[in-house]
Amino acid sequence: MQKVKIALLGFGNVGQGVWQILNTNKKQIILNCGREIEISKILVRDIEKPRNVDVPKDILTTDIEDILADDQIAVVVELMGGLNPSMQYMLKAMRCKKHVVTANKLVLATQGEELFKTAEEEGVLFYYEASVGGGIPIIREINESLTANKIEQLVGIINGTTNYILTKMTMEGMDFNEALRGAQEKGFAEADPTSDIEGYDAAYKLAIMASLSFGTKIDMNCIYREGISNIKAVDIEYADSFGYAIKLLAIGKDINNRLELRVHPTMIPKTHPLANVNDSFNAIFIKGNAVGDLMLYGRGAGSLPTGSAVVGDIISILRSNTDLSELTNMKNSMAPKKIQASEENVSGYYIRLNVKDRHGILGEIASVLGRHNTSILTVTQKVKSEDNVSLVFITHSTLEGNIMKSLKAINDLDNVNSIENIIRIENFS
Amino acid sequence: MQKVKIALLGFGNVGQGVWQILNTNKKQIILNCGREIEISKILVRDIEKPRNVDVPKDILTTDIEDILADDQIAVVVELMGGLNPSMQYMLKAMRCKKHVVTANKLVLATQGEELFKTAEEEGVLFYYEASVGGGIPIIREINESLTANKIEQLVGIINGTTNYILTKMTMEGMDFNEALRGAQEKGFAEADPTSDIEGYDAAYKLAIMASLSFGTKIDMNCIYREGISNIKAVDIEYADSFGYAIKLLAIGKDINNRLELRVHPTMIPKTHPLANVNDSFNAIFIKGNAVGDLMLYGRGAGSLPTGSAVVGDIISILRSNTDLSELTNMKNSMAPKKIQASEENVSGYYIRLNVKDRHGILGEIASVLGRHNTSILTVTQKVKSEDNVSLVFITHSTLEGNIMKSLKAINDLDNVNSIENIIRIENFS
Repeated sequence: MQKVKIALLGFGNVGQGVWQILNTNKKQIILNCGREIEISKILVRDIEKPRNVDVPKDILTTDIEDILADDQIAVVVELMGGLNPSMQYMLKAMRCKKHVVTANKLVLATQGEELFKTAEEEGVLFYYEASVGGGIPIIREINESLTANKIEQLVGIINGTTNYILTKMTMEGMDFNEALRGAQEKGFAEADPTSDIEGYDAAYKLAIMASLSFGTKIDMNCIYREGISNIKAVDIEYADSFGYAIKLLAIGKDINNRLELRVHPTMIPKTHPLANVNDSFNAIFIKGNAVGDLMLYGRGAGSLPTGSAVVGDIISILRSNTDLSELTNMKNSMAPKKIQASEENVSGYYIRLNVKDRHGILGEIASVLGRHNTSILTVTQKVKSEDNVSLVFITHSTLEGNIMKSLKAINDLDNVNSIENIIRIENFS
Repeated sequence: MQKVKIALLGFGNVGQGVWQILNTNKKQIILNCGREIEISKILVRDIEKPRNVDVPKDILTTDIEDILADDQIAVVVELMGGLNPSMQYMLKAMRCKKHVVTANKLVLATQGEELFKTAEEEGVLFYYEASVGGGIPIIREINESLTANKIEQLVGIINGTTNYILTKMTMEGMDFNEALRGAQEKGFAEADPTSDIEGYDAAYKLAIMASLSFGTKIDMNCIYREGISNIKAVDIEYADSFGYAIKLLAIGKDINNRLELRVHPTMIPKTHPLANVNDSFNAIFIKGNAVGDLMLYGRGAGSLPTGSAVVGDIISILRSNTDLSELTNMKNSMAPKKIQASEENVSGYYIRLNVKDRHGILGEIASVLGRHNTSILTVTQKVKSEDNVSLVFITHSTLEGNIMKSLKAINDLDNVNSIENIIRIENFS
């Protein structure tokens, strides 16, 4: 049996998952790729650190050169995360004619182009299935399965932490802070949860998916981004009463070569398949002009699911007889596409106001919305006291620009105490 | 721009979808595979037959030899369906060193092995993504994305007709015959609906998926099969009241190298993602030992979704530089696996009886079940008249053998009028 040697850069959660899969599923993997995969070196920061996995110390190294200089190593698997030195190590590995697999969304979203270019120049393969959606094979789906399609829409729940928090808020009536603490205790959220909570993590993943789907390089700054920390228990209750669930969605649309790219909490009809994606599960809903609606659902994180994607990539490389696969390239050769300004995005809106209980206030607000071409689907009013009324509007689809102008005018009305929350509504039309 | 010539065998619904996709998405496809795909010949039965698609008559032929003899044609796409002459034509095309793409589940499920063997001998590629799940890329998922996994379970809603009928029965309270007529009027069910309704179609697709997932040849006769024609509106109402939806499921499990293969109507918890797959949508739920739970959801039929899978396969062939891909082989090299006898399958059971309203009847039945190691989760009784009581039992998980013996004994009880229905319950444990 021919053995193929690979090296891991980093041996955290995912690295240990890869180790475990290669051991547990050894027979299956040999059947699937005709060769045995051996991890012959692992780059770590501290060789002596105690680890959950029983790995021989002599394969651990703290020196990247040990790996780069080893001609026996065919594939380098980068699992350190972060921008640097990950990026530099991957480039070096490619220049040493090693194929590269990574799970690093940050590097891909921000510097993917250089990696694709280098892989092409060096004639090596570069795979990155685990960078989006953990165990969900979304990259292969876009790059290989949907090649007959113009992909028109991507709508994803691609951050498990925020989905877990929103699920807890929805199912158990928790408020945001309580649900966040629970997620941190269970290890679903980090001590500093900013990247998840504020939508950065989802925006990186959206950048990768949208680049591949729409065939253009996406600048991270072009993605509108809003987190979930402003969602209140009361918003979830209102959403429920209107037949909606609130999810943090990453949305990418290609509307006649103008791209709409945004990450924000969104109300979606409870009957939509994405509405039933709960806890830390991820799902990506795709609309192709031939295939129609398609959804992939699964574990977006975790040592074994993410390891499943990483090992799948390694096997793909070993099965490939080519020196250079076209599949690995983002289609950067295409003309850049225009990013639509936020004001031109279209959705329904949920607007929750705190107003004084004065005669005519409802009419005043309705006429502000009407002046800005926004029609109202439904209004709900809850009186708490004369000076404290909760007023909730659900609008029909309208331009974001109309809503922004309306809100400015509404804020100026004497009897409006405050604009409490604004949440977009996606009706998947 | 290099052009690649292909031929279609058959020009029905899917063939016309392929034609349409190649025309509409021409630019996108060139970007994705670097070449233009030209349909240079189409095998039809009748050249003069009016068609929805505007296709030049000079590319139509009624003679397969026209296609086989044309050295310019690199890929033959079989879309005629049925066993013969499809099978013969595919073998001949392979022997003429043409790559073959098919959407034919019948041929694959029953004679796949010969096709794989011939493709390997001739050094051509053989792709069949469209044979299961229409536009859903389930074959690629199993063959390429999940290679790091031991696949433990497949649970699929893979027949759109029956899912449409069950959805109508559930949502609109229709009875089976009414829903079937509606499906026929809408073109979702054929004039002779036997293959769909009785689960044959799902069984063929299960055979294909299970062969690939569990690495063994599946004999169609080993798949337990039961259709939906016996499901009554009242069963759906009861299911609903217990928190279940009824779906026609194709189930494949690999339990320590013993396979469980069955197609039958099944109650599943309403909270399970499969329970929300409605209308003619398909979905396949997979459990891998690394990736965990995964689900693919989409259009399981239709001209464009199925065409999307067919054209995706053609593009994969054109992108491939290899003469022979290992990926196309069912893993027949593995040792055959044992098929578990039905009596050893484990599930919960819904048992609906019609009994006489006699003192002690409930106890009598409960003790029959108890004697056969079957414990009861819940019982519901609806009295219609003294001689006509509807009694519904939901059992905990038990062996099918226990249930079969229990039913025999229950049927012999004096006060039992009839066993009205038995439906398995899948709890996804």
